[in-house]
Amino acid sequence: MSLIHLYDTTLRDGTQAEEISFLVADKIRIAQKLDELGVHYIEGGWPGSNPKDIAFFKEVKKVSLKQAKIAAFGSTRRAKTTPEKDNNLRTLIEAEPDAVTIFGKTWDFHVREALRISGEANLELIYDSLAYLKQHVAEVFYDAEHFFDGYKANPEYAIDTLKAAQQAQADCIVLCDTNGGTLPHELPAILTEVKKHIQTPLGIHTHNDSECAVANSLMAVEHGIVHVQGTLNGFGERCGNANLCSIIASLQLKMGHQCLTEKQLQRLREVSRYVYELANLVPNPHQAYVGNSAFAHKGGVHVSAIQRHPETYEHIRPEQVGNVTRVLVSDLSGRSNVLAKAEQFNINLDSKDPVTMEILEKIKDLENKGYQFEGAEASFELLMRRALGSVKQFFSIIGFRVIDSKRHGEEKPFSEATVQVKVGGRIEHTAAEGSGPINALDNALRKALESFYPQVKDMRLFDYKVRVLPTGKGTASITRVLLESGDKNMRWGTVGVSDNIIDASYQALVDALQYKLLKDAEDE
Amino acid sequence: MSLIHLYDTTLRDGTQAEEISFLVADKIRIAQKLDELGVHYIEGGWPGSNPKDIAFFKEVKKVSLKQAKIAAFGSTRRAKTTPEKDNNLRTLIEAEPDAVTIFGKTWDFHVREALRISGEANLELIYDSLAYLKQHVAEVFYDAEHFFDGYKANPEYAIDTLKAAQQAQADCIVLCDTNGGTLPHELPAILTEVKKHIQTPLGIHTHNDSECAVANSLMAVEHGIVHVQGTLNGFGERCGNANLCSIIASLQLKMGHQCLTEKQLQRLREVSRYVYELANLVPNPHQAYVGNSAFAHKGGVHVSAIQRHPETYEHIRPEQVGNVTRVLVSDLSGRSNVLAKAEQFNINLDSKDPVTMEILEKIKDLENKGYQFEGAEASFELLMRRALGSVKQFFSIIGFRVIDSKRHGEEKPFSEATVQVKVGGRIEHTAAEGSGPINALDNALRKALESFYPQVKDMRLFDYKVRVLPTGKGTASITRVLLESGDKNMRWGTVGVSDNIIDASYQALVDALQYKLLKDAEDE
Repeated sequence: MSLIHLYDTTLRDGTQAEEISFLVADKIRIAQKLDELGVHYIEGGWPGSNPKDIAFFKEVKKVSLKQAKIAAFGSTRRAKTTPEKDNNLRTLIEAEPDAVTIFGKTWDFHVREALRISGEANLELIYDSLAYLKQHVAEVFYDAEHFFDGYKANPEYAIDTLKAAQQAQADCIVLCDTNGGTLPHELPAILTEVKKHIQTPLGIHTHNDSECAVANSLMAVEHGIVHVQGTLNGFGERCGNANLCSIIASLQLKMGHQCLTEKQLQRLREVSRYVYELANLVPNPHQAYVGNSAFAHKGGVHVSAIQRHPETYEHIRPEQVGNVTRVLVSDLSGRSNVLAKAEQFNINLDSKDPVTMEILEKIKDLENKGYQFEGAEASFELLMRRALGSVKQFFSIIGFRVIDSKRHGEEKPFSEATVQVKVGGRIEHTAAEGSGPINALDNALRKALESFYPQVKDMRLFDYKVRVLPTGKGTASITRVLLESGDKNMRWGTVGVSDNIIDASYQALVDALQYKLLKDAEDE
Repeated sequence: MSLIHLYDTTLRDGTQAEEISFLVADKIRIAQKLDELGVHYIEGGWPGSNPKDIAFFKEVKKVSLKQAKIAAFGSTRRAKTTPEKDNNLRTLIEAEPDAVTIFGKTWDFHVREALRISGEANLELIYDSLAYLKQHVAEVFYDAEHFFDGYKANPEYAIDTLKAAQQAQADCIVLCDTNGGTLPHELPAILTEVKKHIQTPLGIHTHNDSECAVANSLMAVEHGIVHVQGTLNGFGERCGNANLCSIIASLQLKMGHQCLTEKQLQRLREVSRYVYELANLVPNPHQAYVGNSAFAHKGGVHVSAIQRHPETYEHIRPEQVGNVTRVLVSDLSGRSNVLAKAEQFNINLDSKDPVTMEILEKIKDLENKGYQFEGAEASFELLMRRALGSVKQFFSIIGFRVIDSKRHGEEKPFSEATVQVKVGGRIEHTAAEGSGPINALDNALRKALESFYPQVKDMRLFDYKVRVLPTGKGTASITRVLLESGDKNMRWGTVGVSDNIIDASYQALVDALQYKLLKDAEDE
């Protein structure tokens, strides 16, 4: 079984989805995760179309990736210029990626109508853009846009465009189902025909407009394609791109292709959820392989059968992709997960200790209330240590008040917070303003604690995420707040949940401060 | 091209999804919609397992369906009884459906482990359950459970079970991919083999655990299967069943099979959304064919091309399934997008009018600040109308104050808001509490406006989304709030952006109220 190259375009084509917009910092974090997962190529953006994308290529050089190569995306040169003078090709080279992917027109109709040039001129565009890039970039891939539609309209011309890419020594020619209209049974005959003319390694890039993007990708691999483009969770415009999560799992677990190591594949669910989190989207519980419901079984009868012979009721073992069998009602992450976490935190926990059961109960209860500890490991560690009675109470908060007020004509509300904190016998009562109620509360809280614990001054908040959990109750919905805090040594995440956003933020802020004080005390 | 029978099991297998539970009345309404859509068979439930399902079969007789046949679901008889004495078979007959579908074991392993009988005894179960039902019900279908896994484990035995069903004169034998693990490329060889032994018409029933349920169904039709089972929107346990919406559209628009009339097909999106509504689930915007984003296009350059030659940028004409092309207003927005939007809102805007440029500038400026009008079309319409000077000022807000306070020992903060609103010369000063500051502000604002505009009472907030735009400044980040409001006639989205979450929410709330008053005034 051959190695199939995984080419992820979450950061480029994935961001074409209406609701997705990543900051450069998010893109870097996702690139690191994709690298850890073991993806071979990460398409970071289209430097010629977007200044944010140029920044990505600069920043990504500063982090060291283990194996993934960074690819930049662009188009063939413009009709009226030479490759040397083409701005788009220049920005691609200047981005200094490991690989470049450019797309060109395959469908004669688009050549006439969109480019308004002759078919011959389009072949030249493809050829000399690729040949020029080959001199400057290690690997050059060619995306044959609208390939399947173009092939159906004019097979000879479509093949001619691929031949031009082959002559230019493209390292891979990627057949794109740009409009997403192709069905799996159409692929074998088309691929057979393409392979008669093209010896260059072939790739596939599909969209999900017919709900067949994953199937088409797998079918293409079955017929000799060696490079698969897609996005995590199938993010992408319209109906999305091919979902790499599903493709990876099927290629590896069912079709015998080695893409990732076993250990890497076990992180599939984690990485899928990480990307949802940074995109601020609710994960699809029914998502194949990685969804919360993917291995959820109803009914008492099934359950013991599943425990005895899981392989006859589940198409794969969920652990292979980092998921778990869920017996409905008990939403639980499972005792073994808790024990594994404890070990990670250097907490000595015995599987038979009643405290373990207590922690499990507590987590189950909190998860039902909307807590989520992925991305909030500091809160998770505090929860365990509190159950074990091993967290010192560094401070207690007697009360707080936050006031936002706005008078007609003022640009925005004035936010002010007051806090009373008690440490030992002493009480500190502080007031602070801020941009917004939560920032004001944060400022007042630190100000109060700094007089007792000066190290709090080192601490910074890096990220603040709010997720409204849909309950259909509008502004009275449940809110989950995730904070990422850090000091010069480390970063940590905390969580708070409440129907009151101030309260949810307050919980996460207090956890963040307690964690800081706990870790500083451990270091001493 | 042959007629493919569509067999919908939304009301039976669809309700196995964790979050779905229909009342009998809901099921009747859905059955009527499915009938109008033109589905051939509607599986209403499993009368032997559930009293609610028995009620359905009674109730559905009272409504007159145009063409759809009602099917009841059940299992083969128990091992230790005769068909005549089997409770399950009796309730099936007593339900008096037009058709009955029973499932039986195909996989020898399950026969031994779950039924704990011999392979031979299982063949008898299948044969005599079906033969008995054939005497009492007009049409009898056989679901071969775990067919594909069973076939891979023991092809001969799997085929023997189908032969038993054939001998019993089943009207259709349905091959089930119960665990959802089958991939499309595996189907042709298996179906060829089955057809060597079985002349009874064949059906397919797939699950989406490998994200290939739709593709597998289409592939099966391509290889001679004439009956397709699935659910609307792919509802179902774990990763769901095959999505009939996608299957119907592809069969009819791409594979040349006549399933529905053209007019019926145009109701596909409506019926899909109707079922979401009754299931109380948010429709998937990226759903193939019927989703809100399925034909959404970004980018000014594309837009004019789509208007000229839609068929080259869309895999089908969205109108064929009752959907529409949507032009997204985004940071790529050009003049043509704005004009297309204006037309949609019935606003008369000339491309040469300087106001058009002004609106464009304003949008770009707001988008740079973090505004997003995808999902906030009401705010977008207000923005246009304000630029044109055609929005009446229904009210002005003199000021507001929001206070959140918490004392040690209290479970969560107390939130209270006061608002002063002026309409004409009159000022209303109100106070309200709420769960959280924004809910309190929302309550106080409505309370103030209700005395002037009683219709505000009809209005409800359906969804409240908060997006913190990461700027790396922790709790001082920019916040974007998206609201979805509605009354008995319509729903509308508004947006607010600020570094103060109260302020962002306030903007979106005020827009929502203004939009409601504007539309009500237009209606008069």
